[in-house]
Amino acid sequence: MRNIKITIAYDGAGFHGWQIQPGLPTVQGSITDVARQITQEPVIVNGASRTDAGVHALGQVAHFKTKSTLAVAEIQRAMNALLPHSIRVVEAEEVGPDFHSRWQSQAKTYRYRIWRGAVLPPFEHGRVFHYSGRLDESAMAAAARLFEGEHDFSSFAASSGSEDDDRERTMTRVLYSSEIHREAERDELVYVVRGRSFLRYMVRKIVGTLLEIGRDAMAPEDVPKILEQRDPSASGPTIPPEGLYLVAIEYPDPTDSLAAFGRSRSRALPTP
Amino acid sequence: MRNIKITIAYDGAGFHGWQIQPGLPTVQGSITDVARQITQEPVIVNGASRTDAGVHALGQVAHFKTKSTLAVAEIQRAMNALLPHSIRVVEAEEVGPDFHSRWQSQAKTYRYRIWRGAVLPPFEHGRVFHYSGRLDESAMAAAARLFEGEHDFSSFAASSGSEDDDRERTMTRVLYSSEIHREAERDELVYVVRGRSFLRYMVRKIVGTLLEIGRDAMAPEDVPKILEQRDPSASGPTIPPEGLYLVAIEYPDPTDSLAAFGRSRSRALPTP
Repeated sequence: MRNIKITIAYDGAGFHGWQIQPGLPTVQGSITDVARQITQEPVIVNGASRTDAGVHALGQVAHFKTKSTLAVAEIQRAMNALLPHSIRVVEAEEVGPDFHSRWQSQAKTYRYRIWRGAVLPPFEHGRVFHYSGRLDESAMAAAARLFEGEHDFSSFAASSGSEDDDRERTMTRVLYSSEIHREAERDELVYVVRGRSFLRYMVRKIVGTLLEIGRDAMAPEDVPKILEQRDPSASGPTIPPEGLYLVAIEYPDPTDSLAAFGRSRSRALPTP
Repeated sequence: MRNIKITIAYDGAGFHGWQIQPGLPTVQGSITDVARQITQEPVIVNGASRTDAGVHALGQVAHFKTKSTLAVAEIQRAMNALLPHSIRVVEAEEVGPDFHSRWQSQAKTYRYRIWRGAVLPPFEHGRVFHYSGRLDESAMAAAARLFEGEHDFSSFAASSGSEDDDRERTMTRVLYSSEIHREAERDELVYVVRGRSFLRYMVRKIVGTLLEIGRDAMAPEDVPKILEQRDPSASGPTIPPEGLYLVAIEYPDPTDSLAAFGRSRSRALPTP
């Protein structure tokens, strides 16, 4: 069996999230349908991150096993020909048999876009959160940094469990970076967070809390106190999904693109 | 009667162009409906440029006359509250009684976006023309400059007449600038043209011809010859509308924003 890793971008607006749900349009459902059509096998496409309804992706990663002998470039072309325009396979490569998009992810980066202008351009509808009211952006920037490091994020979790892994019951997560900045050339505030893994709604609850801080309803000093409370009702509201993008997923060296490509090529040669 | 100038952005994908057509969704139709709701008058909204079906705008300009005493900021807010998200009034101001969005426009700028990457990002679908094949981009850049100046553009016209003015029967047009460049940070080629006025399909036929030159099916040296032929079948094909944006419309000083604003304020004072 070959193991195919695909990197996927999607506009989440028309989908009930990543995960297959019977009778509802989902990204995983669309991709699985298409992979089955191309391979004529009962393929299962596993994704690294179960993004929620309305959340976008620039670099979701998934993998599937197949006996198909099609070149990966052909698989990518065929998938893009059959998928709706709102889902694109931006990269496809053959990886080693042990590669697993979810279990081997080392870091994920998310971005949340807040449009600050009075009028939302028609081309940004559904792709940003629009908030043109007064915001203390420097207080938000200071507060964003307080989420960095290892914390129990219970106060920033949904009651329904973890986004990444139902079996990981700990609410402790590590954020490598958490920062908010103005986008050059645009009237836009962008929150960027990179971490090992995330709880469900965690990014949206962090941004909801940063907005409360921007509106002076909370203060940066409240962040450590909210984390200590370990109570989902202590944080700010869960901000809508339309501003959230899964930007990239990182894997350890032995299964990263170049190494995997090398391995895939060597497997094509006769082994002694 | 007050004269209200509005600057409008729209995603043209869902509309049968600017101009009102009975029973079809058009941008002018949507804006006129909304202006009538707000003013409770049989308002007619006149636009500067009759963009075709699928063409986008960042800075279309229109005007309408009304007896309403609503502040322009209120008119703008109310229009944006009632319009679909795909149409936004980005600016509204009261101008002198003689201002006419179409007859007084001095220059228009259009942009045409060609996506060069192998895979079209889901967020760009319907907003660029996708062409990832080989193109001689420097030949295209050289050819683009040959359209600058005053020319008879019959070879780049639709048979159905001028986009800007049915009454102007001459096919001579003046282009102040016509250039193609790579967009920094994106795998995208952008054609930008600024001229006094344009014939219907003129920008799309120029870009279609530039693409023929990029594909080596025509040469830059053919441009003067095609212009001389004054035959619409001599130029390249009319490229699809989804990559075309009406970027901005310029007006002479006496009716420009600042002057008009000054006039509007002075008109609010009692006149002797």
